[in-house]
Amino acid sequence: MLDRAREFDGADPLAKYRDRFELPAGVIYLDGNSLGKLPKDTPARLERVVRQEWGQDLIRSWNSAGWIDMPQRVGAKIAPLIGARPNEVIACDSTSVNLFKLISAALAMRSGRKVVLSEPGNFPTDLYMIEGLERQGIANRRLAPREQLAKALDEDVALLLLTHAHYKTGEVFDMAALTRAAHEAGALVLWDLSHSGGALPVQLNECDADFAVGCGYKYFNGGPGAPAYAYVAERHLPDLQQPLTGWFGHKAPFAFSDDYEAAPGIEKLLCGTPPILGLAALEVGVDLIAEIGVDRLHEKSKALSEFFRACLQAQGVNLDLVSPTDPDARGSQLSFRHREAYAICQALIARGVIGDFRDPDILRLGFAPAYLRFEDIAEAARHLAEVLGSGEWQRAEFRQRAAVT
Amino acid sequence: MLDRAREFDGADPLAKYRDRFELPAGVIYLDGNSLGKLPKDTPARLERVVRQEWGQDLIRSWNSAGWIDMPQRVGAKIAPLIGARPNEVIACDSTSVNLFKLISAALAMRSGRKVVLSEPGNFPTDLYMIEGLERQGIANRRLAPREQLAKALDEDVALLLLTHAHYKTGEVFDMAALTRAAHEAGALVLWDLSHSGGALPVQLNECDADFAVGCGYKYFNGGPGAPAYAYVAERHLPDLQQPLTGWFGHKAPFAFSDDYEAAPGIEKLLCGTPPILGLAALEVGVDLIAEIGVDRLHEKSKALSEFFRACLQAQGVNLDLVSPTDPDARGSQLSFRHREAYAICQALIARGVIGDFRDPDILRLGFAPAYLRFEDIAEAARHLAEVLGSGEWQRAEFRQRAAVT
Repeated sequence: MLDRAREFDGADPLAKYRDRFELPAGVIYLDGNSLGKLPKDTPARLERVVRQEWGQDLIRSWNSAGWIDMPQRVGAKIAPLIGARPNEVIACDSTSVNLFKLISAALAMRSGRKVVLSEPGNFPTDLYMIEGLERQGIANRRLAPREQLAKALDEDVALLLLTHAHYKTGEVFDMAALTRAAHEAGALVLWDLSHSGGALPVQLNECDADFAVGCGYKYFNGGPGAPAYAYVAERHLPDLQQPLTGWFGHKAPFAFSDDYEAAPGIEKLLCGTPPILGLAALEVGVDLIAEIGVDRLHEKSKALSEFFRACLQAQGVNLDLVSPTDPDARGSQLSFRHREAYAICQALIARGVIGDFRDPDILRLGFAPAYLRFEDIAEAARHLAEVLGSGEWQRAEFRQRAAVT
Repeated sequence: MLDRAREFDGADPLAKYRDRFELPAGVIYLDGNSLGKLPKDTPARLERVVRQEWGQDLIRSWNSAGWIDMPQRVGAKIAPLIGARPNEVIACDSTSVNLFKLISAALAMRSGRKVVLSEPGNFPTDLYMIEGLERQGIANRRLAPREQLAKALDEDVALLLLTHAHYKTGEVFDMAALTRAAHEAGALVLWDLSHSGGALPVQLNECDADFAVGCGYKYFNGGPGAPAYAYVAERHLPDLQQPLTGWFGHKAPFAFSDDYEAAPGIEKLLCGTPPILGLAALEVGVDLIAEIGVDRLHEKSKALSEFFRACLQAQGVNLDLVSPTDPDARGSQLSFRHREAYAICQALIARGVIGDFRDPDILRLGFAPAYLRFEDIAEAARHLAEVLGSGEWQRAEFRQRAAVT
């Protein structure tokens, strides 16, 4: 398969972008869906922010270096990549904190309704943030398996909160259909794009989505714990209220008035002082993904994951795939169920093939298309076949659990 | 006064620490209380985090580089500097977001009481975060001038929220007395240490304080928009509930369970994935302040600000000081009221003396003692005398307003 892989790489229009990322020797990185790679431009950008803007220009950089509107600027760059208008997206806080803002905002817009509907097994923080509002007495959390979501959308539901591409299985929801169903039931919709933004085409405007949040450190390559982003449909901006009313969301933060008056636009989602180092790194990652283009990335990601499956098959490996077999129905990943997924994952890591394990039994392999070659895929499949065939995963060192992400 | 200044500098035991900070040429920086200077060790630390830990080691750094417990580690280093135990402090999110968590937590602990008491003119975000909870129907905001706070502490008050050193005037509250008064009224207390942490001795444990928050980018020199910190007295940790229940506050985040169970300790204040770049920069700043020592910093800051006043007097400058004249009653700053404070501040900046302006009429000069010399103080006073004497602040270019922080 290596020959075929090299042929594919030779014909790959995105092959040249691989060089724009730092490529550690001896590593095949199938975990860009957990922490994206370092773009080569990032260290120099951070060095400029730190040494020049902070070190030399100090407080003046809030104006002279444009720190003051970085959340809006980076948000506006993310917007076209998720099918939104530039004034509908802002980069700030964490995905979790942004979930809290937008769940709250939705509940305030649907007074009389308290139910926030999601599915069991959604990414935990999505579910936990609903619980936070539940403990405040503001929300009721309701979970229904995805095939029963339509039925669970009754007149008590204020908000449907779903993750577009499932973090574990990669299954992708039909955003247009679910959004329509929610609206027909009088509910609003909040999409978590953490596992789709920057990897799959997302059409928030076209789907008439109300709200969205997403992650900066996966496919946007913003660095560990990068700021997240949040989207509010333009039609909701004038009336939107969210409870994390910090000074940066004020319409005139530097008037230092005692009373809060929300900024008119998307900047009303800001709370505290923006994290400039994190935003600078995120901006580099977003610029690079925008340059490559999400549609092309999506095409390549489908080709990569299908090629991986073909490689496994060619080597007689038969693993239990929990991701959809149709590449258009899944995110940029393949997940396999195996009782010994943890140990297999560790054995792969020892060979330099970095995927991740998701409790209790999922081996998750991500195919971030911006920096993976088909050759890497063939090699990864060979390693996986060898790990399974040799039984080396049974070694004690691979079965010893540590904290993982 | 320059001779006396140089004498003082020669005898200053902290003089050597100045070299540990980046010192832009031609600048006298009196705004370390808004954005602290860049420690010289920070760029190398960030470069290591970015190029090695992120770029080379990728996802493995959550364990191998200790990313996973950075919020706890940095918090534990801040703790002794504010009179707290290591397990009572955590570095995370922004000051504003941390205010929301702890105001909410206090209200949950005092059910039946809804009033959060503060003073008008407190830093806006403190007041705004109460309003956010007010809009949720959970809190009632009550403001009373500081001389009437004791009287306003009635049986409806769940929480007293005050800023230890006032951002505008520098006035310092008697933390022990106010905490006692609140407790006697059955209320809890939350101290905002943004303008005291790292500059003044703070004795949270000794004062029996319940909660505190503080800023990472002022006296702790953590960089623009650095993560903030939060303190919870050990006695409150077991029962504490806060509504921003993100996955990093879960007792087993990587079990990926559907239901939230708070971590037992201070890490229950975590919400989303920690911002590693920001925490790394903050850690360098905190280490440096810890090395110098808060008591010594405080002594020097009092000497600096008193010397500034003496210099002004020697030059016949008579400005309206709104900070307390007793250096023990104020933070590390001097604030002057002047109708033309904005233009005066701009004229000073044009001369390389960077202070800041606080609407509507305050010229605020901060004396971050870790990197200022007495010579800088004498020079700053001379510039201020010249700006006032020459009337150069009247130039149009200095009266034109821009966004400032």
